[in-house]
Amino acid sequence: MEIPRQDFTQKLPMVKAAIDECDFMAIDTELSGLHRPGTGKRIETRDYRYNEYKEATDRFLIIQFGLCTFKWDAPSGRYIAKPFNFNIFPTSFAGGRSQPNRVFSVQAQAFDFLAKQAFDFNKWIYQGIPYMNLDDEKKFVTEKRKMLNDEMPDIPVDDKDRPFLEDARKKINTWLESKNNKPKDNEGINIAATNGYLRRLIYQEVRNNFEGLTAEGRQGYIRVIRFSKEQQLKRNKEREEQFENDRDKAIGFRKVIDWISESKKPLVGHNMLLDMCHVIGQFIQPLPDTKEEFKTLATKLFPIMIDTKHIAISAPEIEKIVTGATDLENLRFETSRQAFENPRVDMDWEFPRYIEQKAHEAGYDAYMTGTAFIKMVSYLDSQRNPEEIVHVVEDAAVELEKEIQQEETITESNGGWDIEPDDDVDPNWTIDDDEIYNYGSTWVRLLEENGAPIPLIASIANKAALVRSAYHYFDFAQEEQGIIKQSNTFVVHLNQQALLENDVALKVLSAIGQYIVEPMDENSSLVVYERALADKDTIKQRLIDELKKNTASYIPVDSIIDYRK
Amino acid sequence: MEIPRQDFTQKLPMVKAAIDECDFMAIDTELSGLHRPGTGKRIETRDYRYNEYKEATDRFLIIQFGLCTFKWDAPSGRYIAKPFNFNIFPTSFAGGRSQPNRVFSVQAQAFDFLAKQAFDFNKWIYQGIPYMNLDDEKKFVTEKRKMLNDEMPDIPVDDKDRPFLEDARKKINTWLESKNNKPKDNEGINIAATNGYLRRLIYQEVRNNFEGLTAEGRQGYIRVIRFSKEQQLKRNKEREEQFENDRDKAIGFRKVIDWISESKKPLVGHNMLLDMCHVIGQFIQPLPDTKEEFKTLATKLFPIMIDTKHIAISAPEIEKIVTGATDLENLRFETSRQAFENPRVDMDWEFPRYIEQKAHEAGYDAYMTGTAFIKMVSYLDSQRNPEEIVHVVEDAAVELEKEIQQEETITESNGGWDIEPDDDVDPNWTIDDDEIYNYGSTWVRLLEENGAPIPLIASIANKAALVRSAYHYFDFAQEEQGIIKQSNTFVVHLNQQALLENDVALKVLSAIGQYIVEPMDENSSLVVYERALADKDTIKQRLIDELKKNTASYIPVDSIIDYRK
Repeated sequence: MEIPRQDFTQKLPMVKAAIDECDFMAIDTELSGLHRPGTGKRIETRDYRYNEYKEATDRFLIIQFGLCTFKWDAPSGRYIAKPFNFNIFPTSFAGGRSQPNRVFSVQAQAFDFLAKQAFDFNKWIYQGIPYMNLDDEKKFVTEKRKMLNDEMPDIPVDDKDRPFLEDARKKINTWLESKNNKPKDNEGINIAATNGYLRRLIYQEVRNNFEGLTAEGRQGYIRVIRFSKEQQLKRNKEREEQFENDRDKAIGFRKVIDWISESKKPLVGHNMLLDMCHVIGQFIQPLPDTKEEFKTLATKLFPIMIDTKHIAISAPEIEKIVTGATDLENLRFETSRQAFENPRVDMDWEFPRYIEQKAHEAGYDAYMTGTAFIKMVSYLDSQRNPEEIVHVVEDAAVELEKEIQQEETITESNGGWDIEPDDDVDPNWTIDDDEIYNYGSTWVRLLEENGAPIPLIASIANKAALVRSAYHYFDFAQEEQGIIKQSNTFVVHLNQQALLENDVALKVLSAIGQYIVEPMDENSSLVVYERALADKDTIKQRLIDELKKNTASYIPVDSIIDYRK
Repeated sequence: MEIPRQDFTQKLPMVKAAIDECDFMAIDTELSGLHRPGTGKRIETRDYRYNEYKEATDRFLIIQFGLCTFKWDAPSGRYIAKPFNFNIFPTSFAGGRSQPNRVFSVQAQAFDFLAKQAFDFNKWIYQGIPYMNLDDEKKFVTEKRKMLNDEMPDIPVDDKDRPFLEDARKKINTWLESKNNKPKDNEGINIAATNGYLRRLIYQEVRNNFEGLTAEGRQGYIRVIRFSKEQQLKRNKEREEQFENDRDKAIGFRKVIDWISESKKPLVGHNMLLDMCHVIGQFIQPLPDTKEEFKTLATKLFPIMIDTKHIAISAPEIEKIVTGATDLENLRFETSRQAFENPRVDMDWEFPRYIEQKAHEAGYDAYMTGTAFIKMVSYLDSQRNPEEIVHVVEDAAVELEKEIQQEETITESNGGWDIEPDDDVDPNWTIDDDEIYNYGSTWVRLLEENGAPIPLIASIANKAALVRSAYHYFDFAQEEQGIIKQSNTFVVHLNQQALLENDVALKVLSAIGQYIVEPMDENSSLVVYERALADKDTIKQRLIDELKKNTASYIPVDSIIDYRK
């Protein structure tokens, strides 16, 4: 379902309901650009990658956001998916109210890519939903409050505008004198003011020198009005409501992100590290300086993040099937095989946009991601715990029984659908309780009763795929453990600080090829080459020789271990 | 006429012809953003403004370029306009050839503004024409030349890829041996190579170790071929042609700018300083550091630039009519009055896009700008040199006579339209020489016989309107002279360096209000306040007192002159 800016407020309750009712949800984003121009290096440290992504979130924007909620539907024995597609554009004039004016970057190649997928750039700009992050909102509230409370700073009066002001003052006084003879509330006088400067002068004059009067802006003039106390109160209440309304409009799309965060439900993405950086950086707050602070922030906001690409790389049962092709399109293809039949996932009948496939539209990609996720988890569970399957099916059966009973109760009390035969209605079209077809697929448990993830989910949660790195994944919850074991990877046992700051050591290392250093602990570092061009003994001997020859205080190279072993 | 990327190469000769034949041309641009967020200051120095614009050209892009050529058509007694509208997008994949990958900025408000004018963003991205500036072109040529001459740097061979390379070598040798028995040119052998790295290894192997053989990339494999000398020559020629072709494609829209520059014809814009900064910065070279260098560069490229906004501000005869409303829409409106009847301007019949008005599309705005220009010049000329009018009309009459004679010659030799009666054609539709309707408007002389601008044009050329400044205009050709005479403007006679570097002086000046300093000569500076908040005597006395009190070496304040006087 596409949600254009024009319908956003009206459709929000439907989005909220979908988030509230779902078992889990999946997201996807389309971006205005990816990252700085490539350095030509084939491998980067985690810190470098985080900084690259942080920088990217400062420059590029999420221009389309896909959210797909998945809810187990016991009566029909399947998951019901609700995919939403939001175009996001930081328009400055949402609902006639001005928003922060943003400057953002576009990478031409990113738009080329989107163009290949038939992306509609007009929809993006004409229908895109604006947003404010927390800081924007604070500023917005402060400013609007000031206006609401007439706390505007005075401006100096130009010599040439003094006659105008004098004239206005005279007009108001004359009117007031005539008014005093026949005082009547809610009457006023109009002062023509053709530009913003003159208008501010009138506001400020009335505010400072005419107690009990109020200046209200109109088209081309200011109306100076005398309000009764009651009218004043009513006016204040209306303005307060308007303010709340404006604030909601200006918060815009962030509301959806807030709800996703508040739900604390499993949040699935595909290759999701960059997505999560952008979601947080664009809608919540600028990303912190270090990846450690980012991890704390991210898991506080989204405690259970699950990356389907990470599952496909790290779970041997899946890896065997996809054999390295871990892109979303291939995961969708592989998980549509017979072995992944359980559970069935269907789109809600009110979400007809995706009857035809729309790969690379964020809403559809989120749908594919969530579907692949639940099928992979079900498959892994069946492979790892074959005895539990029956249990799961029983659970599902119990659940189904419960829901059917609930529905019957509703029907009996006539609070549900009216299923009495009706002459006006073709009996073939009436809804018959017995006719709900059960597809017989089974519910997949993700969380324990207490809300904690089940062990399988816990083992894959909060790890995001990381390409061109020494590690299998980025760990949102802790220091990364999953070092990739390959022939170009060595653990150098040598005082870490000494290694990183010693020119000679760095020269020896770089003479062998392009490499990165990832600190492990005080006395050991991971050295990973782009290509395996020398063995550990060669590296060790050269390091020992050169360090002995070139450094005053001897730096011992304790050992170098070929990481494969 | 809209020129989409897909038709660009094919339509280029038509653009060239229009530039070659025209008397003058007008341009307009639409931008992806305007400038850095406002400082809140109401007036800025010329240096500040130039730096602001320079910075803007580094970040924002011309996304639509309008060019309208105007040619005097003597037979019909009017100007014929040819408006072209080009969408400009730096796509990375023009014509299947990769271009520099650009990152550029977008100001959300600028897109909001374009959206209000119903701008088609899909056309921009799907049909936008790419470009390279001079530096891009140099880099492009160097790289492609290297590839053309097989001057690729060797890459190291991974251990794991040695068997692949060994295998390929064996295959080629086996084939060569069998070939030697039956040598035949233009035969080859295919080596499967599934990724870019393996492909480069094969190229490099053939280049370094198999003289006389050539490796050519195909889909999924490399074909290793033995060419005869003739075939080699033919192949080189084809590749050279392909290279030239690719270069032209990659130069893209800059070709049009080059032609405009080479023509040296009068180039008209409206409020054109920012336009010219972008045209040069985007298509020619990054803008120089100082406004002085920029002026030299700009006038070298475009020796006669004329700004219609500057005309409307500076020519009293026009100023009287437009009374401050110098926006393009109003100029168009005012110059459509009876007094501006001469000359008539019509669109070429092959350019039907603008039968309906399309304000704010760059092509249409260029058309409006050029039309307003020629009408204003004609009007000014008639006002200032009433006696010359007859002369101009005579000129036009002579011109007309000449062109008619030329046409008759062409017709007689049957090199023109065939106007013999033809039974198959409705005689009402044949073109009859006598039927060319002459609208009777008169040609407007812009240049002398020797190509130099006539005095009227010389007096307005190379001056661009400058808002929120101490000067009436930005002068492309020399130091600005047109200081705006108003009550907030003073000339301070005081060693300039001493003024700019003296904290006390600056404090005294700023205590009176927001101001700027524009150097005039060594011993005098222009001090301009945003508002007139003190008179010259107050300022002078305070400067003298404070400088005497606070500076060790006495700095004399020679005088302060109220600039109005």
